[in-house]
Amino acid sequence: MIIILKANASEADAKEILNKIEAAGLQPLHMPGVERTVLGALGDERVLQGLNLDSHPQVESIKPVLSQYKLVSREIYPQDTVVNLGLTSVGSSQFAIMGGPCAIESEEQLLETAKYVKKAGATVLRGGAFKPRTSPYSFQGLGVEGLKIMHQVGQETGLDTITELVDIKDLDDVARYTSAIQIGARNMQNYSLLKAVGETQKPVLLKRGLSATIEELLLAAEYIVATGNPHVMICERGIRTFETATRNTLDLNAVAYIKEKSHLPVIVDPSHGTGVRSLVAPMAKAGVACGADGLIIECHRNPRESVSDAAQALSPGDFTELMQQLKPFIIASGRQFVTAYDLQGARYAS
Amino acid sequence: MIIILKANASEADAKEILNKIEAAGLQPLHMPGVERTVLGALGDERVLQGLNLDSHPQVESIKPVLSQYKLVSREIYPQDTVVNLGLTSVGSSQFAIMGGPCAIESEEQLLETAKYVKKAGATVLRGGAFKPRTSPYSFQGLGVEGLKIMHQVGQETGLDTITELVDIKDLDDVARYTSAIQIGARNMQNYSLLKAVGETQKPVLLKRGLSATIEELLLAAEYIVATGNPHVMICERGIRTFETATRNTLDLNAVAYIKEKSHLPVIVDPSHGTGVRSLVAPMAKAGVACGADGLIIECHRNPRESVSDAAQALSPGDFTELMQQLKPFIIASGRQFVTAYDLQGARYAS
Amino acid sequence: MIIILKANASEADAKEILNKIEAAGLQPLHMPGVERTVLGALGDERVLQGLNLDSHPQVESIKPVLSQYKLVSREIYPQDTVVNLGLTSVGSSQFAIMGGPCAIESEEQLLETAKYVKKAGATVLRGGAFKPRTSPYSFQGLGVEGLKIMHQVGQETGLDTITELVDIKDLDDVARYTSAIQIGARNMQNYSLLKAVGETQKPVLLKRGLSATIEELLLAAEYIVATGNPHVMICERGIRTFETATRNTLDLNAVAYIKEKSHLPVIVDPSHGTGVRSLVAPMAKAGVACGADGLIIECHRNPRESVSDAAQALSPGDFTELMQQLKPFIIASGRQFVTAYDLQGARYAS
Amino acid sequence: MIIILKANASEADAKEILNKIEAAGLQPLHMPGVERTVLGALGDERVLQGLNLDSHPQVESIKPVLSQYKLVSREIYPQDTVVNLGLTSVGSSQFAIMGGPCAIESEEQLLETAKYVKKAGATVLRGGAFKPRTSPYSFQGLGVEGLKIMHQVGQETGLDTITELVDIKDLDDVARYTSAIQIGARNMQNYSLLKAVGETQKPVLLKRGLSATIEELLLAAEYIVATGNPHVMICERGIRTFETATRNTLDLNAVAYIKEKSHLPVIVDPSHGTGVRSLVAPMAKAGVACGADGLIIECHRNPRESVSDAAQALSPGDFTELMQQLKPFIIASGRQFVTAYDLQGARYAS
Repeated sequence: MIIILKANASEADAKEILNKIEAAGLQPLHMPGVERTVLGALGDERVLQGLNLDSHPQVESIKPVLSQYKLVSREIYPQDTVVNLGLTSVGSSQFAIMGGPCAIESEEQLLETAKYVKKAGATVLRGGAFKPRTSPYSFQGLGVEGLKIMHQVGQETGLDTITELVDIKDLDDVARYTSAIQIGARNMQNYSLLKAVGETQKPVLLKRGLSATIEELLLAAEYIVATGNPHVMICERGIRTFETATRNTLDLNAVAYIKEKSHLPVIVDPSHGTGVRSLVAPMAKAGVACGADGLIIECHRNPRESVSDAAQALSPGDFTELMQQLKPFIIASGRQFVTAYDLQGARYAS
Repeated sequence: MIIILKANASEADAKEILNKIEAAGLQPLHMPGVERTVLGALGDERVLQGLNLDSHPQVESIKPVLSQYKLVSREIYPQDTVVNLGLTSVGSSQFAIMGGPCAIESEEQLLETAKYVKKAGATVLRGGAFKPRTSPYSFQGLGVEGLKIMHQVGQETGLDTITELVDIKDLDDVARYTSAIQIGARNMQNYSLLKAVGETQKPVLLKRGLSATIEELLLAAEYIVATGNPHVMICERGIRTFETATRNTLDLNAVAYIKEKSHLPVIVDPSHGTGVRSLVAPMAKAGVACGADGLIIECHRNPRESVSDAAQALSPGDFTELMQQLKPFIIASGRQFVTAYDLQGARYAS
Repeated sequence: MIIILKANASEADAKEILNKIEAAGLQPLHMPGVERTVLGALGDERVLQGLNLDSHPQVESIKPVLSQYKLVSREIYPQDTVVNLGLTSVGSSQFAIMGGPCAIESEEQLLETAKYVKKAGATVLRGGAFKPRTSPYSFQGLGVEGLKIMHQVGQETGLDTITELVDIKDLDDVARYTSAIQIGARNMQNYSLLKAVGETQKPVLLKRGLSATIEELLLAAEYIVATGNPHVMICERGIRTFETATRNTLDLNAVAYIKEKSHLPVIVDPSHGTGVRSLVAPMAKAGVACGADGLIIECHRNPRESVSDAAQALSPGDFTELMQQLKPFIIASGRQFVTAYDLQGARYAS
Repeated sequence: MIIILKANASEADAKEILNKIEAAGLQPLHMPGVERTVLGALGDERVLQGLNLDSHPQVESIKPVLSQYKLVSREIYPQDTVVNLGLTSVGSSQFAIMGGPCAIESEEQLLETAKYVKKAGATVLRGGAFKPRTSPYSFQGLGVEGLKIMHQVGQETGLDTITELVDIKDLDDVARYTSAIQIGARNMQNYSLLKAVGETQKPVLLKRGLSATIEELLLAAEYIVATGNPHVMICERGIRTFETATRNTLDLNAVAYIKEKSHLPVIVDPSHGTGVRSLVAPMAKAGVACGADGLIIECHRNPRESVSDAAQALSPGDFTELMQQLKPFIIASGRQFVTAYDLQGARYAS
């Protein structure tokens, strides 16, 4: 940690702070300069936070040397984490494709969707049972009933399943009925929820908050891992910027950056990341190309009848065509396009 | 709702959509133009959402005519809502001042702080028992023990009290021990939490999310009011922008805008809104001047020892001086600067 | 300047960089830590930039200790700069009020407007002759003809005048016909233009770019001052954020921050800062309260007929009423509300 | 254009506005609703702007139906525009690669760089002779001397050349010495400059402003085309957001969106779009995958010695490796990877 003193700070101020640093068991450094005195404190920056040096009236600013996340950092674990959902190994050489409707509407709807996404190449079925909606007057999801439908359809098709958890009280049900738990963007800093999923061993897909920095996103992942659950996947789903032509701004820089700094797998969501159906395909390809480990894409057997996010859902035809187009990009990225049939076959064979 | 069709939409497309609108009991409008056909649907836009017209492949864009919030709008209730905390009437002619530490650290610390903020002019004591922290390694608050300390100090000084709720499981304790519940910025769209406080009749201070639009903020308030609790105060506490010189960008435009559109009282938080101690005073004055109903300000008996947010906490001397400086601005704004002593005296007198 | 090396940097890397620092005549510092080696370079950071240390493959990040602006900083010149426009002394105890239409439309229009803004309390007449417009199909201004009208009206009313310069070729005309030159937000980093006005001694109002940081804004002012013109006023006119309810987000934090760091006067533009007529008055008051040295406000004799920015222009009645409401805020801020009549009287008397 | 009236607007207000619309030769529409009256005006929205309907006190908001850009829109010209630089046809089946240093430092430096970017696969040499720098104390470029060097190197290698123009006075020199003119991000709304290049027939690469919306970017292109120069390439180079881990946020959504709405070719700049050397390669691939027509990449024979933007420049080895890695992505995107040797050979052969 670097501590920059104000121009008029005295030597006594510097000493006082250096003593505090030393008393905390850290290595103090003194760098008197012409215009400013700069101090250093080397060691575990988590301890340093407790010193509250930024409250000192003669401290102008404090600059951390190290990122605050540890367990999710490649500096601690250099190898890629692989999260196993059942069929799907996210973060492996297998490129992971998750598809399905925004909301679970009925068993018939979900089963039909599951069948065509499986046929097109997806190995994970997505779908919301609990929908966090900006307006209290919008459809809020089927709840536990939706979870049971998802479980049923997962059994029938053999696909892995994932759904969003919005309330701790539903954690047991979500964990029982699905392969993986999604934490949505609005709850990325709902620390009670993060700790609750951290106490399970269920795979978690953590979506980036609308205006969360990459550092905050990795710290939210750190909450889950530090609580005890290492099976975390990060999801880039677009951030909020000044641009209004698209619903969000898909930040693929973040994907490349996180792949460099963290060992956790990264999934790209081009559906929410654009909010525009015609932009899903190009941005899915870009997600593959920048190094993502997988994609999560909204599709609906009939987008015109979707009860939510209809403007961004792909039709069965669009989804199938996109999967075909993705193949050469997946291969160019050094990954494999593996279908549920391949994996189920391999399982039966072994 | 205005529906703009794509350039190549046919008359049959327009008819199909107009029929949908009519079937939903709304008034359809047809506006064929040279370059585009525009359709209209007049009536309750909450019903219109269910039509999912944005999923139609020939719909280019949809523009709402009305805001989605109803109950918090001045169009429904033109008069100012006054939220009563006990001593303090937020939204009345009394300008409300809330002061106290970021975190409750001990009874001694809170009592000492309470005494000086009361003496300086505050009528509400703030302080966190549950602290949502970006890093899992930061101090997370004293929990229920902190609530009991706050209750004790509130009793002893006669001040109203407010603290943040982060987990539904603590709702009963927070409601029992304090005068008002704060929903923090990170939880502004934690709809389970909003509904839970909506089921009480406790006053709620709803803080704007870091990147929430004003529309989303008012819709979050609508969640609480629609669930049954009309005692809602809005808090502007700075938004996230590209600027890094200050911790957040205090959006006072939003204060003036919300005062125009909504009947709910608005509180300004210049401490989080700037994150810089020396900027708290000028922005507190600006908050008064733009029409806020009150201020919430972090202060600490010794900012150097504060366990969190030390860089923005005022010292007792700074806080007292600021209160004196605020008086002419409060009066210029047509409000009254009323102390706890005035109010307690009035109560005893009556 | 603090240089943080990558985790795997060797001692030789550190030495190589320390040698570079020393060779540039600066003081090198070596801080080997457990997880990272940190280096320091003390001295004039403008020299340090030339070292390009951020290009070294073993350098993780570089953190400047000092801001890059010098001449506009209070560390160099602690006293407030006062910019004299003729009648108006911006940055003095006199609170400066600039009013007028977005665009100069005719002599009759400008004269009528000038008369009522003068009567209401303004001492500077604003109005655009060259209009930078987002669309090539919008009205682009009367050009030099407009400048002559402004000169004429300035003579007739005795008001100071200010207009925007968008092209170096018009500099001589703008300097000849008006009291002060405005550099608009879109040209804040048009360095050719900054240098050109820096070569004059004309007062300059430099508007903040839509997404310029405060540091960049002060560096743009530094361009003008470093070229030779110290008569610079800064203008906060709203930044671009995700919020769409208002046209821009008026960043009053920036006003308070710049007043602390720089000796240059700061003007607030609540018209562009909100883009909404009904929000101009509350934000003008907030601008006064946070410590601005003046306001620049758009008004039009008949806003319904304004050729541009009509949605934010005040009517004569609104403008006059606002001036009356501002008085107690100006006095509470320790400034004086001085009219053109007062100043002209004082001039005649002396 | 859709005009939404305030809740308390009278029928007379509606009539007044409808009459204005009709008088302007447009088709008026009247949609009285329960909570609001909505009006429409169909026809050329450029004419509608002149009506200033947003200044009417009973108008709540105005929503445009059509985008303001015309000439750059696919609705007017559905086919892709191809911009010919000499060797390079940007927007054709040939994927265009532009490489070179941030700044031209010497003939030796530029020639060496030109040789290796040509060998690696680039057909356009980039390099700055005039550098717009945030700080007045940074290196500002070699000026016309740099242009001559670029011309010389272009002749010697046969590569097309591109450099930034920052001041109208240098337009003739830039046009004489290079194949294409770059308009930088800071000057995207310097309309004098846009009109000046619009009066030439030189190819122009228009970079997106740091916080320009896509609509504003296309309107800036419209300025150039409307003035008379159709040879415009758009460049996405990252926008300014709250994220600080990367220098800018590369907005690839914008690339896909612009390719859909406009016929102009789009180039991606992953160097400025990330500001981090290690992220250039993944984002270059992503740029190809989302449908860009080309890339512009900073490289330097020895990044450690680069006088500017050193942190993002690729070394010769990195650049060459990246070109190899790009090939399968270019082919998967349906484009061809064509070198300068191929093109020169084809020319000689024909």
